[in-house]
Amino acid sequence: MSRKSKGINAERELIHLFWEHGWAAIRVAGSGSSKYPSPDVLAGNNLRRVAVECKTCHDLKKYFKKKEIHELKEFAALFGAEPWVGIRFDTLEWYFLSIDDLEETDAGYAASLQLVKLKGLIFSEIIG
Amino acid sequence: MSRKSKGINAERELIHLFWEHGWAAIRVAGSGSSKYPSPDVLAGNNLRRVAVECKTCHDLKKYFKKKEIHELKEFAALFGAEPWVGIRFDTLEWYFLSIDDLEETDAGYAASLQLVKLKGLIFSEIIG
Repeated sequence: MSRKSKGINAERELIHLFWEHGWAAIRVAGSGSSKYPSPDVLAGNNLRRVAVECKTCHDLKKYFKKKEIHELKEFAALFGAEPWVGIRFDTLEWYFLSIDDLEETDAGYAASLQLVKLKGLIFSEIIG
Repeated sequence: MSRKSKGINAERELIHLFWEHGWAAIRVAGSGSSKYPSPDVLAGNNLRRVAVECKTCHDLKKYFKKKEIHELKEFAALFGAEPWVGIRFDTLEWYFLSIDDLEETDAGYAASLQLVKLKGLIFSEIIG
């Protein structure tokens, strides 16, 4: 399975989780290739809305380009949603990090497995 | 150009319109084929959010299946957005109809060119 397919499968898994818990959720078409900023997943429960940049990770640390995090923030502010980074490490469930909790690097941002376990919210917490 | 491509082009045109006017907008991946209800386009300006079922029309009347209108309503209520039907007749600009303004038929709903001109909002009105 290609990296893109794995990413889409992970996003679909997250979509199912939201619907199972009474939230409406969709995958965004062409996110990452659109000329406009856009997250990978948008979900809402009438009271709150979350815009999620989704990543799968097979190592101990995931890196983000400055641009993708800035665009997530820009989209969320304009649309009216909370910006979150969703990370799915191989053997772990989904974790969600606030942009402010990402580690800043020279080229952008990063989230280590350690950081995710320390500061990340699990799914039941992000919808709670 | 296939009917599907024409539909996607019309949706992209609408996405551009929203961004040009300071709204954030996205196309939904797999709308119409997903197992969950979902609109074609979602847009927001921090204060309001709209879920739009998009249709192009080359005749004088457009028909909607009961299911697609009910799912639009269901999604919008759960997500926290206003449900709208967006129709692009060949020679006209985009018009937006409230679900309540659609004509009910035996098999679902319909919107004639006449109805759209009478009850529909144009783009500047829907974002106004």
